[in-house]
Amino acid sequence: MLKGVPAVLSPQLMMVLMEMGHGDEIVIADGNFPAAACASKYIIRCDGNKVPEVLEAILKFFPLDKYVKAPVAVTEVVPGDPVKPIIWEEYKKIIKEYEGDVKIEEVERFSFYERAKKAYAIVATSEEALYANIILKKGVVK
Amino acid sequence: MLKGVPAVLSPQLMMVLMEMGHGDEIVIADGNFPAAACASKYIIRCDGNKVPEVLEAILKFFPLDKYVKAPVAVTEVVPGDPVKPIIWEEYKKIIKEYEGDVKIEEVERFSFYERAKKAYAIVATSEEALYANIILKKGVVK
Amino acid sequence: MLKGVPAVLSPQLMMVLMEMGHGDEIVIADGNFPAAACASKYIIRCDGNKVPEVLEAILKFFPLDKYVKAPVAVTEVVPGDPVKPIIWEEYKKIIKEYEGDVKIEEVERFSFYERAKKAYAIVATSEEALYANIILKKGVVK
Amino acid sequence: MLKGVPAVLSPQLMMVLMEMGHGDEIVIADGNFPAAACASKYIIRCDGNKVPEVLEAILKFFPLDKYVKAPVAVTEVVPGDPVKPIIWEEYKKIIKEYEGDVKIEEVERFSFYERAKKAYAIVATSEEALYANIILKKGVVK
Amino acid sequence: MLKGVPAVLSPQLMMVLMEMGHGDEIVIADGNFPAAACASKYIIRCDGNKVPEVLEAILKFFPLDKYVKAPVAVTEVVPGDPVKPIIWEEYKKIIKEYEGDVKIEEVERFSFYERAKKAYAIVATSEEALYANIILKKGVVK
Amino acid sequence: MLKGVPAVLSPQLMMVLMEMGHGDEIVIADGNFPAAACASKYIIRCDGNKVPEVLEAILKFFPLDKYVKAPVAVTEVVPGDPVKPIIWEEYKKIIKEYEGDVKIEEVERFSFYERAKKAYAIVATSEEALYANIILKKGVVK
Amino acid sequence: MLKGVPAVLSPQLMMVLMEMGHGDEIVIADGNFPAAACASKYIIRCDGNKVPEVLEAILKFFPLDKYVKAPVAVTEVVPGDPVKPIIWEEYKKIIKEYEGDVKIEEVERFSFYERAKKAYAIVATSEEALYANIILKKGVVK
Amino acid sequence: MLKGVPAVLSPQLMMVLMEMGHGDEIVIADGNFPAAACASKYIIRCDGNKVPEVLEAILKFFPLDKYVKAPVAVTEVVPGDPVKPIIWEEYKKIIKEYEGDVKIEEVERFSFYERAKKAYAIVATSEEALYANIILKKGVVK
Amino acid sequence: MLKGVPAVLSPQLMMVLMEMGHGDEIVIADGNFPAAACASKYIIRCDGNKVPEVLEAILKFFPLDKYVKAPVAVTEVVPGDPVKPIIWEEYKKIIKEYEGDVKIEEVERFSFYERAKKAYAIVATSEEALYANIILKKGVVK
Amino acid sequence: MLKGVPAVLSPQLMMVLMEMGHGDEIVIADGNFPAAACASKYIIRCDGNKVPEVLEAILKFFPLDKYVKAPVAVTEVVPGDPVKPIIWEEYKKIIKEYEGDVKIEEVERFSFYERAKKAYAIVATSEEALYANIILKKGVVK
Repeated sequence: MLKGVPAVLSPQLMMVLMEMGHGDEIVIADGNFPAAACASKYIIRCDGNKVPEVLEAILKFFPLDKYVKAPVAVTEVVPGDPVKPIIWEEYKKIIKEYEGDVKIEEVERFSFYERAKKAYAIVATSEEALYANIILKKGVVK
Repeated sequence: MLKGVPAVLSPQLMMVLMEMGHGDEIVIADGNFPAAACASKYIIRCDGNKVPEVLEAILKFFPLDKYVKAPVAVTEVVPGDPVKPIIWEEYKKIIKEYEGDVKIEEVERFSFYERAKKAYAIVATSEEALYANIILKKGVVK
Repeated sequence: MLKGVPAVLSPQLMMVLMEMGHGDEIVIADGNFPAAACASKYIIRCDGNKVPEVLEAILKFFPLDKYVKAPVAVTEVVPGDPVKPIIWEEYKKIIKEYEGDVKIEEVERFSFYERAKKAYAIVATSEEALYANIILKKGVVK
Repeated sequence: MLKGVPAVLSPQLMMVLMEMGHGDEIVIADGNFPAAACASKYIIRCDGNKVPEVLEAILKFFPLDKYVKAPVAVTEVVPGDPVKPIIWEEYKKIIKEYEGDVKIEEVERFSFYERAKKAYAIVATSEEALYANIILKKGVVK
Repeated sequence: MLKGVPAVLSPQLMMVLMEMGHGDEIVIADGNFPAAACASKYIIRCDGNKVPEVLEAILKFFPLDKYVKAPVAVTEVVPGDPVKPIIWEEYKKIIKEYEGDVKIEEVERFSFYERAKKAYAIVATSEEALYANIILKKGVVK
Repeated sequence: MLKGVPAVLSPQLMMVLMEMGHGDEIVIADGNFPAAACASKYIIRCDGNKVPEVLEAILKFFPLDKYVKAPVAVTEVVPGDPVKPIIWEEYKKIIKEYEGDVKIEEVERFSFYERAKKAYAIVATSEEALYANIILKKGVVK
Repeated sequence: MLKGVPAVLSPQLMMVLMEMGHGDEIVIADGNFPAAACASKYIIRCDGNKVPEVLEAILKFFPLDKYVKAPVAVTEVVPGDPVKPIIWEEYKKIIKEYEGDVKIEEVERFSFYERAKKAYAIVATSEEALYANIILKKGVVK
Repeated sequence: MLKGVPAVLSPQLMMVLMEMGHGDEIVIADGNFPAAACASKYIIRCDGNKVPEVLEAILKFFPLDKYVKAPVAVTEVVPGDPVKPIIWEEYKKIIKEYEGDVKIEEVERFSFYERAKKAYAIVATSEEALYANIILKKGVVK
Repeated sequence: MLKGVPAVLSPQLMMVLMEMGHGDEIVIADGNFPAAACASKYIIRCDGNKVPEVLEAILKFFPLDKYVKAPVAVTEVVPGDPVKPIIWEEYKKIIKEYEGDVKIEEVERFSFYERAKKAYAIVATSEEALYANIILKKGVVK
Repeated sequence: MLKGVPAVLSPQLMMVLMEMGHGDEIVIADGNFPAAACASKYIIRCDGNKVPEVLEAILKFFPLDKYVKAPVAVTEVVPGDPVKPIIWEEYKKIIKEYEGDVKIEEVERFSFYERAKKAYAIVATSEEALYANIILKKGVVK
């Protein structure tokens, strides 16, 4: 633990966030995401925690990419599925607080998987909400 | 995640609990414990979580040793320190629920450190309460 | 060993089951399957044990995927081969007990091999029955 | 699997038995033995299996040391404990079949632990019987 | 060394033979074969030994594949080369003794190399005879 | 790089600072210190940088231990040596700014070396000033 | 530290410069470059330092390739971006001092990334200037 | 050092020469060759030594391939380059002494690089002569 | 294989012989020696071979130490044991051929074991003769 | 290779020299020294080269320790041995050229060995001269 660093950020997660550069992506995955199978570089276990608290902790330090249309991505609701991913509202609120108005892209499920495989790291939370995975693209630190 | 396994138990922690045998000890450490420095075998990061929830999840699967006087140990309050470790009451309640009446030993701080160095694993939580470290000695599974 | 965890689940197998996510597959292979040669991620030795006992132990914790037609696969009997894989009846009974009515897909031998190569893990048992390999696709834990 | 090799012998266990020389010791441990904590060289998981079947499979290939009084050791019953380790009778029968009359030494519990720490390998079974751990000292292959 | 296991089988070679499954192949290479360069999984040094003794030791435990036309392969004599690989007669005799009448396929040199690269293991002997490399495809252990 | 994290803190150094617990020590070593030879756990290269900037960056996140007399140590000037380590004044100023009045212990050169060998990490800077090594003992994060 | 070697060159960076041969490339990356994600061979952390000082230190030992048109490359300013990368003037001055008149190529951003992925090493500095990444191609040492 | 083994052959180089088989290639590279970048299997440092002495030491033990037209290759002089690689005369003399008349192939520079990437090993000398790299293809040891 | 190097010397054994210096010891162990358990640095498998052929191959390159009374050691016959280790005569003949008159020390069994644990390498042969282990101390190569 | 760095310094040796700090020692060993057996941290092969050229290359960058009586050590001639280690004269000349008048300590053979075991690195040359090993203690770089 350190002064001013949220407890949910593990030492390895902080290291990974620092190693990332402009354009690199990180996935905050829910508890059912095939995180270990998709991770090609880093898989960071974050058991017992939910996505929103991890998201907020990360955004305290992590700028979003202003050079692309949408530096944030979530999984598109499968056509016909009546689920309303209300957790997205929470994400929007947190993101707005730290980064202002940011466009969030909805990505078709299998494209999301492919993109996760190219991400620099995947954080495996225990989030139980549906459609709760989120990708963040790192911006420039000034 | 699996059916019937609390989310706070990471895959590696579950593996370690299964590898342990009769008499082996595990430390659930608070956020200020020098966990990485003391761990001689396994250090299991459990950032963002508190000791009681980890304790309860572990005891769901993990029997305490009935062959010793006290299969549980906490750090003795340093003489003169007015702190009342009220978190111990929570520990007692959880332990009683899973294992019945079990004696809890209070161990002098530096002896506690030495014992932690011999433990099979140390779980590093983000618990903020004082005097919150706890050692569990594994019993026989029947 | 732990309370409530079948003895046939090794610590590493339990860890792997927990690491798997929605859509990941695991192969429970018989004693003649080229398990080590096919495994691209995890090979878990389970010598001395048979497939049904491993299958039952896994299904105690592991939900099957409800989002696909058939979350279970076995090897199709080679055309002309008079063998009746009676062990499949045992599989169906076990699966029904834990997951209800589930469709089991029969996969042509070489397609089965290719699919095994993409599985998250292969469990190498000593099962002697013919046509005894089985693939399970993990579902969502709620 | 190979012709003439019992299924309970894993590839790694067979390798270890072959690497051992005159005077080296192997522990076949029951399911509650702190096998991982004691193993200083090899820990061989053998989950789901019992000690007698492993013992018999090993003795098919493994000669006992004729140069010491007792090439086999079990844990002495703790004074006052009414348990009768009837599994020992099974051990004696198996050993007699393969190696003739061999003296079995009863070793005090903590001395047994220390000796296990020096063994070349520990095989971790799921044996549930009490006082079921056994040490074998390898003899000369002629 | 173990009772009943030929001395020429190293511990690692025995382990590898056990790990192999139905359809996996092993190459017993002569002393001039580029074994280390071709091996993609296991290279097992067997210096100072000849192919026939290794072949015989392996066949004691290793069944050949009855599901293919030719479970054994040797390198085809290069057109124009007057060499008569008399060592093949020795191979046939050994194979017949252990596995009965088995077809031996002659494979063109470069196809042989490509097949060796996909083998589960290559055993590097010091055999000096020409055209002495041999591939064995593992069958089903019953 | 991250928002609010000084550039001189490398990802690995940040990770190490987070892994440390109450009572663990870190050495910020000058360019002539035998850092690689003394480091028993982590050696963190910080070439091209000076001690004061590293010290200040660390103290932004790292509390000093309030439970010991002196949570900071420097090397005692060798008796007879006329050098005045003026860099200590800079250290005092930085420490005061972040942690208030803190006692700094002067440790005899060889005792300092022994203490460095037990530290959790040694940061190897390119500081050229004499007597510029400094040890920090981590306190409790509240 | 060594006599005559600039402090900003870490031991590993010096080793890498020596291992490089004619035609190999090294990237000196600014603080926002995705260095860890792009590095396929060596990533050398150089936190707390700026590109010009690293460039100058490297050129003290490292000849540029005289066999290509442009042995140095920078990222082309994105069309429409009003930024003037004044740091390039500094680069030119340093390069001129060590290697005389050398052509510097401007490479389109994504081509630059692809080239960085093939470089022998990437040095990750904390440079804050925009368009500050630079690639050097090693020449012949005479 | 051993009796009868030239001092310039390092233990690892001798091991590699022994591991090589018929048709495998080794590169003896000059000091400017990008040896570390090209080596896909073994890079053997041989700093402070020249190619001719390494060549002679290797040929003492290493037969050249008699089954190909040219078992030796050097880099073709770039068209227009007036350099006369006189070191080739030295190579020819050494090769003749050990292997008789052997054809030496001149390979275009970039084809040479590609071939080096497939070699079993690259020996990195400090040779300063131009066009001094040489490839040897191993023959059959009788 | 190489010209002039006996086939029984594996690439790794040759490397180890070259790495050894004046005063280092190597054990050529028989098939019952606990080689893997005693080896602290290198264990070199030499299955299928006997000690005399390995001894002779080694002495072709390996000088014995002339600065000690006895550069060769064998295990003393246990008092009362009627065995005559006739293999020693073979050893003496081989040693005499390569190194002239050399004193061979007989070492008590357990002292021999301790000395083997400090040896640079242990070669594990399949020698079946009794009292067949031998230690060689390396001399100066001139 | 780099501009101004002697060819005999390998990339790894240069890295090691840079990692060393005040008081650390390096051994430049002759060809008969048991370098691999004594090295506890780094063994740097320098086959084919002699001690004087390595010594001179090192001293170009490496200051000797001015804080001890004798920053250089050689092995004392064994009493009774008539050898005159004339190579020492060469050492003195080289050292004088780079470091001025420096005292060279003669250390008894076995003490020399013990000291070598604590050195940061041992460079294994092919020097054939007797009594040719030398230890250098690193000084302060200003």
